[in-house]
Amino acid sequence: MKHFPVSNFARNLRKEWRKLKLPAENQTVVVAVSGGADSCGLLLALDELKKAGKLDLKLIAAHFNHNLRGREGETDAEFVRDLANKNGVEFVTETAGNLAETKDNLEQAARRLRYEFLFKAALKYNAFAVLTAHTLNDQAETFLLNLTRGSGLEGLSGMEQCRKLKDETDILLIRPLLSWAERELTVEYCRNNKIDYCHDIMNKDENFNRVKIRKKIIPLLKEINPQIIQTIYQTTRLLFEDNLQLDFEAQKAFQTAVENDVGGWSDFTEILKTKQMLDFTPSVRRRVLRIWLEKARGTLRRLERKHIAAIERIIAGENGKFVELPDNEIIVKKGNRLAFIKRKVEKSPLDNYN
Amino acid sequence: MKHFPVSNFARNLRKEWRKLKLPAENQTVVVAVSGGADSCGLLLALDELKKAGKLDLKLIAAHFNHNLRGREGETDAEFVRDLANKNGVEFVTETAGNLAETKDNLEQAARRLRYEFLFKAALKYNAFAVLTAHTLNDQAETFLLNLTRGSGLEGLSGMEQCRKLKDETDILLIRPLLSWAERELTVEYCRNNKIDYCHDIMNKDENFNRVKIRKKIIPLLKEINPQIIQTIYQTTRLLFEDNLQLDFEAQKAFQTAVENDVGGWSDFTEILKTKQMLDFTPSVRRRVLRIWLEKARGTLRRLERKHIAAIERIIAGENGKFVELPDNEIIVKKGNRLAFIKRKVEKSPLDNYN
Repeated sequence: MKHFPVSNFARNLRKEWRKLKLPAENQTVVVAVSGGADSCGLLLALDELKKAGKLDLKLIAAHFNHNLRGREGETDAEFVRDLANKNGVEFVTETAGNLAETKDNLEQAARRLRYEFLFKAALKYNAFAVLTAHTLNDQAETFLLNLTRGSGLEGLSGMEQCRKLKDETDILLIRPLLSWAERELTVEYCRNNKIDYCHDIMNKDENFNRVKIRKKIIPLLKEINPQIIQTIYQTTRLLFEDNLQLDFEAQKAFQTAVENDVGGWSDFTEILKTKQMLDFTPSVRRRVLRIWLEKARGTLRRLERKHIAAIERIIAGENGKFVELPDNEIIVKKGNRLAFIKRKVEKSPLDNYN
Repeated sequence: MKHFPVSNFARNLRKEWRKLKLPAENQTVVVAVSGGADSCGLLLALDELKKAGKLDLKLIAAHFNHNLRGREGETDAEFVRDLANKNGVEFVTETAGNLAETKDNLEQAARRLRYEFLFKAALKYNAFAVLTAHTLNDQAETFLLNLTRGSGLEGLSGMEQCRKLKDETDILLIRPLLSWAERELTVEYCRNNKIDYCHDIMNKDENFNRVKIRKKIIPLLKEINPQIIQTIYQTTRLLFEDNLQLDFEAQKAFQTAVENDVGGWSDFTEILKTKQMLDFTPSVRRRVLRIWLEKARGTLRRLERKHIAAIERIIAGENGKFVELPDNEIIVKKGNRLAFIKRKVEKSPLDNYN
């Protein structure tokens, strides 16, 4: 390997790579590049490290066109393609179908499709990891955004630096800027390297609230604590570990509260013993419910705090015998058991009681 | 008891009183009254309920003059005295000594003296509880303020509606507005009842950051979520219960990690087994450390995140054998044990190594 001096930004990235104990050679990584300063900076710093002989990885620049802004989206894709080509980096792209048809909210649907594309790209190129360019700022913004959405501990724990991309794969999702780089560092790095980047790659409507947090709320918080971005990051790390501990406790508790539905009256093979549930603290009980509901429904999507609260009330015998969930699902209490029922018809007699 | 119609505000207060399962007769309560809309509203709503025969409690209005604003503080005290007298409520007051001499930060010292005064007042009048007029807004502001200060889960859990005023007493500290009343409700109640209140009872410097949160940051968060005050309150409740669960786990863990200092090399009778500490998750380990340090030091005051992190590093064998804490205290690792040492002299040879 040849050795050249590298920029501070690239050096810090290399340091983080070492800290995360990630392989430095003979591997391929897929880098998610939207075209903004963060992801252009990440791609080019990786390329800088590669050219300086500090990181011997094959880089794939992957761009997903959400197809929400017509020509503008195509321009971004071309921009990323050019940037990749100019630096001898392989490029892969995909354009989403019509997201407007989705049942979920647009932002969630867009994210799901994007990660699905990145996963396919990683498989195609036999990459060990997908890298995204989330910064300290993204973590702080996500924290505040989730706060406005009523998140509990899990939602306030933020993103992880390194985790599996999906349950059923070994491919990693790595965010090598998350723990140390403020957004302005990526902007500065791009500027120093005379790299142009897309200045307005966000969909204005979709990200309206995030922009308000970024442009108005965080600057005010900075007046109180100039290090607020780092401070919130440290808080998310503490909350993340607390959440991990509680999840671990809840998994143990879940095993004591669940039993097989031998009577077959449920649409899921496991039912919950309400007496056991009442013995748990509220913190554990809510988590056990979420574990069970995620298994039964396949997802926690569209489940809100009010649904969990309503189930807690029927467990306590305070309020009725059933709770309606989204997607025609019902939680029913029968004796000392709680079951998950999937409605067969769109309209049922239960509708009259809502 | 005679029964009269009462205002919505007083009715909601009565409802909360019932929900908290608090006694409705033959008891005395000390109401902390600063002179602002919140505390004037609370005092007068209690008095309204009393006069309407809905709550047969003896009320004591207690005002603490922090002695930080000269004549202004005296004016507030007189205002509260007049308000109490006019409504036939007994009044008690005290003026703080010179707070500027305090070692701690001013706000903390002021709060400690205020609660000490309220405790003495409760003892004097044989009250079962001290009531404060904290609202939903106070909870949200405290959450955000603690966020800027780098709080973890405990600091983000907010205030409780009802708890013991001190460890060694049965007197309760009750916040009967906390879970339901926004500040504007107390202002409206005062206005409807033609009660004047002190408009600017806060020390500007002391509360500069809180005012910024109240006047600038929360209004912006409201643009994203009009119910942000309630939303943050619900979040604090969830976090509070999570924190309770983790504290419970940590207490159990602490028992397995502690042993008596038979060698007598520590300035606290209990030392920690570092091997046991390493077996814990970071979440539990940090809490065990805090339990131990609170017992050894008598308080967690002046202890920061960086101190805990430094102790974690010496436990892991990463970084030295001792950690300096505030107030001439040192944590020392010797073999597989961690001890608390109180320095005898102002200057020690260890100073050279900092």
